[in-house]
Amino acid sequence: MKRLMTQTAKLGAAAALAAMLASSPALAGGDKAGKSPWGPQDEIGTLNMMTDASRQEILQRIETGKVYDLGVDLFVGMPDCCSAAFGDPTYQMWMIHAPARGDGSGELLSHSSEAISMNTHTGTHIDTLSHFGLHGKLFNGVSANEALGVRGWSKSGAEKYPPIVARGVLIDVAKAKGVDILPASYAITVDDLKEALARQATTLSEGDVVLVRTGQMSAWPDKSKLTLFTQSGLSLEAAEWLAEEQKSMVLGADNLGLESFPSTNRENFAPVHSYLLAEKGVSFIELLWLEELARNEVYEFAFITSPLKLRGASGSPIRPVAIPVKRGS
Amino acid sequence: MKRLMTQTAKLGAAAALAAMLASSPALAGGDKAGKSPWGPQDEIGTLNMMTDASRQEILQRIETGKVYDLGVDLFVGMPDCCSAAFGDPTYQMWMIHAPARGDGSGELLSHSSEAISMNTHTGTHIDTLSHFGLHGKLFNGVSANEALGVRGWSKSGAEKYPPIVARGVLIDVAKAKGVDILPASYAITVDDLKEALARQATTLSEGDVVLVRTGQMSAWPDKSKLTLFTQSGLSLEAAEWLAEEQKSMVLGADNLGLESFPSTNRENFAPVHSYLLAEKGVSFIELLWLEELARNEVYEFAFITSPLKLRGASGSPIRPVAIPVKRGS
Amino acid sequence: MKRLMTQTAKLGAAAALAAMLASSPALAGGDKAGKSPWGPQDEIGTLNMMTDASRQEILQRIETGKVYDLGVDLFVGMPDCCSAAFGDPTYQMWMIHAPARGDGSGELLSHSSEAISMNTHTGTHIDTLSHFGLHGKLFNGVSANEALGVRGWSKSGAEKYPPIVARGVLIDVAKAKGVDILPASYAITVDDLKEALARQATTLSEGDVVLVRTGQMSAWPDKSKLTLFTQSGLSLEAAEWLAEEQKSMVLGADNLGLESFPSTNRENFAPVHSYLLAEKGVSFIELLWLEELARNEVYEFAFITSPLKLRGASGSPIRPVAIPVKRGS
Amino acid sequence: MKRLMTQTAKLGAAAALAAMLASSPALAGGDKAGKSPWGPQDEIGTLNMMTDASRQEILQRIETGKVYDLGVDLFVGMPDCCSAAFGDPTYQMWMIHAPARGDGSGELLSHSSEAISMNTHTGTHIDTLSHFGLHGKLFNGVSANEALGVRGWSKSGAEKYPPIVARGVLIDVAKAKGVDILPASYAITVDDLKEALARQATTLSEGDVVLVRTGQMSAWPDKSKLTLFTQSGLSLEAAEWLAEEQKSMVLGADNLGLESFPSTNRENFAPVHSYLLAEKGVSFIELLWLEELARNEVYEFAFITSPLKLRGASGSPIRPVAIPVKRGS
Repeated sequence: MKRLMTQTAKLGAAAALAAMLASSPALAGGDKAGKSPWGPQDEIGTLNMMTDASRQEILQRIETGKVYDLGVDLFVGMPDCCSAAFGDPTYQMWMIHAPARGDGSGELLSHSSEAISMNTHTGTHIDTLSHFGLHGKLFNGVSANEALGVRGWSKSGAEKYPPIVARGVLIDVAKAKGVDILPASYAITVDDLKEALARQATTLSEGDVVLVRTGQMSAWPDKSKLTLFTQSGLSLEAAEWLAEEQKSMVLGADNLGLESFPSTNRENFAPVHSYLLAEKGVSFIELLWLEELARNEVYEFAFITSPLKLRGASGSPIRPVAIPVKRGS
Repeated sequence: MKRLMTQTAKLGAAAALAAMLASSPALAGGDKAGKSPWGPQDEIGTLNMMTDASRQEILQRIETGKVYDLGVDLFVGMPDCCSAAFGDPTYQMWMIHAPARGDGSGELLSHSSEAISMNTHTGTHIDTLSHFGLHGKLFNGVSANEALGVRGWSKSGAEKYPPIVARGVLIDVAKAKGVDILPASYAITVDDLKEALARQATTLSEGDVVLVRTGQMSAWPDKSKLTLFTQSGLSLEAAEWLAEEQKSMVLGADNLGLESFPSTNRENFAPVHSYLLAEKGVSFIELLWLEELARNEVYEFAFITSPLKLRGASGSPIRPVAIPVKRGS
Repeated sequence: MKRLMTQTAKLGAAAALAAMLASSPALAGGDKAGKSPWGPQDEIGTLNMMTDASRQEILQRIETGKVYDLGVDLFVGMPDCCSAAFGDPTYQMWMIHAPARGDGSGELLSHSSEAISMNTHTGTHIDTLSHFGLHGKLFNGVSANEALGVRGWSKSGAEKYPPIVARGVLIDVAKAKGVDILPASYAITVDDLKEALARQATTLSEGDVVLVRTGQMSAWPDKSKLTLFTQSGLSLEAAEWLAEEQKSMVLGADNLGLESFPSTNRENFAPVHSYLLAEKGVSFIELLWLEELARNEVYEFAFITSPLKLRGASGSPIRPVAIPVKRGS
Repeated sequence: MKRLMTQTAKLGAAAALAAMLASSPALAGGDKAGKSPWGPQDEIGTLNMMTDASRQEILQRIETGKVYDLGVDLFVGMPDCCSAAFGDPTYQMWMIHAPARGDGSGELLSHSSEAISMNTHTGTHIDTLSHFGLHGKLFNGVSANEALGVRGWSKSGAEKYPPIVARGVLIDVAKAKGVDILPASYAITVDDLKEALARQATTLSEGDVVLVRTGQMSAWPDKSKLTLFTQSGLSLEAAEWLAEEQKSMVLGADNLGLESFPSTNRENFAPVHSYLLAEKGVSFIELLWLEELARNEVYEFAFITSPLKLRGASGSPIRPVAIPVKRGS
């Protein structure tokens, strides 16, 4: 963390964060990568909960052709988690072929193509288990020395991830609390989740994709309102409750980094990240567009997305869809 | 075309192509962008055929939880359409954060992330209507002068594309012809498609996503066997039959560029591209992984994919899924 | 300009700038690209002033082996002119080969290489004549329609630029005014230049490379103090005096964009750029490191630099050197 | 090496190379990084030989204003060492601002800028001491674990390199042997160097920049004739003679990788690289344009170049100049 914090300071990000961390008590939190219950070869953690039967169960409850689009546009100048904070590359797109200039009519074919360059954690995206380890090891004991090269990880890369087809649940915390957007840095508690679920009359099941709404995306794409270090999100306790008690398969949120920032753990600037990815093998999705689901009070749905199979990558841009379903029995 | 051919020559690609083109008769083919039947504001062409009803119809026929993954891995050194031919950028991935070297145990958090850079027409991907126009105009009369900047198109970019949920059909031409891979540069005819459909006992319907299998991906990822200018693919006639008579919504194939290359039209190096995209508003998908569908003889399915909403882009990497359905009535 | 200003606003840059411009009187300034006195084929403007004789004259006055380095480091997170203002890509560097992790001793060869990505106007760099035109034409009447493609300009690109070997002169305006750094947005006048020259007992000659010091680089690399829209720099009048009366060959400054910003011409956000490049064919250098020359009061020197021959580029990173000379006769 | 060779094989490069290596005897060659005679903090090796006096000596012998340009153009599609061989990124350049399309006259300012992306070992470039180590250590005992991160090396990066101003000598081996281009894979011997020097009546001195001409650049930019694995270049013995007996400061050649390839040492695919960089601290320059010097028989000159200060980089593109000098005493 010291390294990242130093980097952050150099790049001009909030001194306030450092001060806050320096004065807060060190909280409990694991410091050791977990071992997979799915065996020593496992690289995808809780995604192993998905089976033909689990997919079939949710797909057969689809009762409509209405499809909700949970992904955001990717464009030059878009908000991102990490370019201002860490100097990471911004999203870029440029032309590699274009029709001739002038009126372009001189050429029969008007051919266009373009290239993009991006942090894989840009726009709506999934974090894979290789995104965070603890003390040099990923979930299931994979060490960087064995599995990391300049072109990524040989373990737990995005190409190992199956298409995700599962029951999805929206927990609209902002609505339950009667606010448009949760306060800056607000850490969602277990009670917040329970109250919102009760208010929605939604129950969670093992293997769900659980999407938590903070309301922050109502400010999209205003960069001044969407900054990693002031975002509301899950508390560690809420993440623990979802992963361990509710046995959720995948988590997600409408913010830049899932959890509340800044961390209150002075030793760990992203304790929910390391807990879910490194200790529990739970992947999660960030920068989800949940506004339409929320507006229409769609709390249960078939959730479908396919991470791009970016070999060795710790994340992948995705554009998930949600299709409303009949209430389960 | 002259421009592209010159470029190709400079970059060392097949002189044979030029020679072949020079000696072949000029074939018929449109030279004017089409007008959309969906109105002057339309930017997505035949994707307008998709409705809640059409999606519901196919989704409710799903009878299994088996999901076929139609996308390929993206990796450094992968085959692509255009880097050798045109000097286009290759797929690249690199680390922007990585655990400290050594045994990495000194740091609590082992943080990894990476960036990618790619032609948007890399790996399994969809071509949008902005990819090819005719005489300076895209489908529906959009001119480059009005709608193209250094950061892409304000019309018919990938961000305008809805998630695609539709009936999908595989036409296994290679299997119907009893070969592993169609011969180099073979142009699939209308009769080829009809025979394969008959052999499969599959019928096409309006609004289908039609995926044509040449067998070329059985050589994946051998770059020496996957080259644009020698690939088999659709003939112009076959594309016309699918678009106009069968009213297919989206086409696709297991090759680098949908159509047979080299073109036999000396004026147009990609006549199927310009016909489908610019004249008819039909989008299509390339580099599909159809091997498992073919092996299991799955010819009809729910086809689901979501192009990344890359603002202004003429294409997007995708990873579609196919879910088998009950036979339609 | 409206386009750039809109873009700037969208990207969150200073609303103050827009307000300032809206309330300022429109100033005079050319709106038409100039014609080269060096003939219709000329692409490098005043660099034609350089001859074997002019180079020999200055080289033979070298009296020392002391070499001043006028370039800055390029690094991830460095200040730049345009990433915050316009969404332009930041400087990036990443590994493409690295020794195996662990202790690395297992492999005989420990091979490293890396790639970079950058705006060509990053770090110490030269602006070529293709950087700014007026009403669609570069200096010497080159139109974008004829000479610009997705891979740059066929005219006035950096590859056309010769190595620059000329008499260099430092004008230390900050020192003459007795300040460390000129005030924000200060526009250096002709009198400022004259006074500084007099104070230094330096005279200008035809064909000089004239480097103007504002003192801003004493804040390098503090991004908060090095921002384009608040920088001090040349006024249009000062640029005119240097180009037309002093017949300087190349100009330069220790700031992000040579001239004072914001412009006081509401129609032209960079009037010195368009005057020098498009009207007069004068190239210039930005982000120069002049601190050591200033400290040692070295006002006259052999100036040597070679723009990278980036084909078609409107700029190139450079690292010039200055070698003190005997006073001229 | 095994790792690189595997990678090479996967990417389709010459199987012949592997076969050749497998059948050749293992040759002698160091396997341990050297210790700098300039002290434990040294990061630049033999560049320490350069002093004010050494620079002054050569600069004062300049007798002309004629400047030879030793750099090549950088352009999309250019030959490079490593993209085909290792999947490394190719040189790319793209527009980030461009005048509005149409006739462009609607806008007052016609603003262009562009970005580039490149392997730092592209075009004419210098290799720094961080480019090759032995068994995990760079010259002077720097370990990757201590000094390498995702953004390069904290030791021996290009930003540590001073501008290079020294006596340069061209050794035209191709001319001495009476050929346009040395045979493929020819390894230049010590005798070859001695004969060419004698023929030229040139003597070497301690601290020289020694540029060796093979003639290969007469084929520039034909990619089919400029390939790393078939290039002629220095033998290990010749490199040893230059570094140890002649005490050259910097070496250079008109080829993609200085030394003859393939290596005849089956354990080390680049023995001259590791000898010079890791054992002796000698930096070198590749892809030099020596054709004009050769044509004019300019064998002795002031050699001037400034590596870009790319922080942490193992190489930098450069564009050196050579200025003829009076014969030394």
